[in-house]
Amino acid sequence: MTDPRPGMQRLGYAPDAVAAGLRTRRTATIGVIVPDIANPVFPPILRGIERVLVPNGYTAIVANTDNLQERERAVLAELAARRVDGVVIASARWVDDVAERCRRLGLPAVMINRRPRDGRLSAVVSDDAAGAAQAVAHLTGLGHRRIGHVGGPTSTSTGRTRRAGFVAAMRGAGLSGAPVVAAARYDIVSGEQAARRLLDRHPALTAIVAANDLLALGVYDELARRGRACPRDVSVTGFNDMAFCDRFDPPLTTVAIAHGRIGEEAARLVLAAIDEPSPVGELIRLDARLVVRASTAPPPPRARTPG
Amino acid sequence: MTDPRPGMQRLGYAPDAVAAGLRTRRTATIGVIVPDIANPVFPPILRGIERVLVPNGYTAIVANTDNLQERERAVLAELAARRVDGVVIASARWVDDVAERCRRLGLPAVMINRRPRDGRLSAVVSDDAAGAAQAVAHLTGLGHRRIGHVGGPTSTSTGRTRRAGFVAAMRGAGLSGAPVVAAARYDIVSGEQAARRLLDRHPALTAIVAANDLLALGVYDELARRGRACPRDVSVTGFNDMAFCDRFDPPLTTVAIAHGRIGEEAARLVLAAIDEPSPVGELIRLDARLVVRASTAPPPPRARTPG
Repeated sequence: MTDPRPGMQRLGYAPDAVAAGLRTRRTATIGVIVPDIANPVFPPILRGIERVLVPNGYTAIVANTDNLQERERAVLAELAARRVDGVVIASARWVDDVAERCRRLGLPAVMINRRPRDGRLSAVVSDDAAGAAQAVAHLTGLGHRRIGHVGGPTSTSTGRTRRAGFVAAMRGAGLSGAPVVAAARYDIVSGEQAARRLLDRHPALTAIVAANDLLALGVYDELARRGRACPRDVSVTGFNDMAFCDRFDPPLTTVAIAHGRIGEEAARLVLAAIDEPSPVGELIRLDARLVVRASTAPPPPRARTPG
Repeated sequence: MTDPRPGMQRLGYAPDAVAAGLRTRRTATIGVIVPDIANPVFPPILRGIERVLVPNGYTAIVANTDNLQERERAVLAELAARRVDGVVIASARWVDDVAERCRRLGLPAVMINRRPRDGRLSAVVSDDAAGAAQAVAHLTGLGHRRIGHVGGPTSTSTGRTRRAGFVAAMRGAGLSGAPVVAAARYDIVSGEQAARRLLDRHPALTAIVAANDLLALGVYDELARRGRACPRDVSVTGFNDMAFCDRFDPPLTTVAIAHGRIGEEAARLVLAAIDEPSPVGELIRLDARLVVRASTAPPPPRARTPG
């Protein structure tokens, strides 16, 4: 029997009752789960997602988890009950069962900023390790040796990868044992608290690599509290290049991730997963790129003398 | 016949088949429609909405319209098809048929930042006119007389109300005929373009009241392009007090709206509209309050001399 609907095969439909049932279930809606809607890193990712979804007749609906695993579970169940056709998950927890839950719910899913450990879900990530290495290379190139890291939460994939990239790059530069403090959350106050712990223990640091831009703003605050100027006394780098980084005082040197493309690729992957389910996930890793602004400078002269 | 389910009456349920049908239709999901997810004014409003919805067992799902009326219509239809229990509409167009569409879809709805003209939908707004008057009073108090307005899009309710508030306050200060230019959109580039038109025509202005914070950043950019310093040559005020206003260079003097409370009140109103539909909308108007930072100062001495 020939298929009377040309082109359908190409899209992964089979002309039988089960497939027809699958088809009528389609709602042209994709759920996007974000950990913190107030983090300006997400809107340009959402715009990228919409740039691909809207021309394909899909609508994105966004749900916020507040970085809570139980909220992530509730939101995922809600979206499945709302019959979304697929989900893009940007809530970057390192250890959780979201992949397994999506499978059980029959929900095509793609992860952003987190590499799923079982390799069955597709994911779009930035080359965080290379990005952290660029920040370290920029600072050592300016003459810094005493460089510390305000890391992201250890429960996040980005926190772990950026920290590992920082440590490896410092070791590669002959600067083993560089101090690292992990922030409790990706927000300004947690960055300030982590910078305080870091500088209490290592007051001679001349540069701090922060694992995201909000944490870098917290480092600014802690430096101001100590009466130390950025970048004259201490250089600071961020990560993400979220909106307004160029407007801060000083404008923030940061590792830019390709927000728009991350969203576009994630949307393409989720549409592909809807049309043609595959047991093997695809991993897309996008370049990160250092953007040098005014928060980094050579270390103060006395800090450059040996010993 | 007595109701075997005590407490249900209080919540507005009637124990009959129609009501049971209504009840099973409930999905514990509220749609939130925003015009621009990248505008940092919305995340704290969404957090306020979630602070009320989550403890009540509801999930918020957010959809973005990109300020396009046809997207607003599509998104509204999608959310209705997804069987959300109600919607909060923050896409502040002045003239559209969203109220009528919600009624036809049987969708309880509440508006944010827009006063519905037919009075049948509930709404939460800020006292935008009073806010604009505070900005004018602050500037005239510093000695400014030549004050212009970079207004919001004339298609938006906030743009119209803030402009009217500015014009009325200037007139009240004996400064009739103050120049006004409307920005095409609420974004930085549109603010820069509007400031260029305003300053081309009125180069002697010593202060500009912008209708939101993104427009104020555009005014910063146009002043920098002209080699004019803020606040030394020209003072600038914003509107909203979105995230990071305190971080800009210079930190922005702006009219703060009560983001969190706007969200909370909107969530309460939509839950009330779900439980107890009413033919008459409720209007909640929250105070706006000027936050003085470093973007405003007395006018330069020569500008203060008469003539």
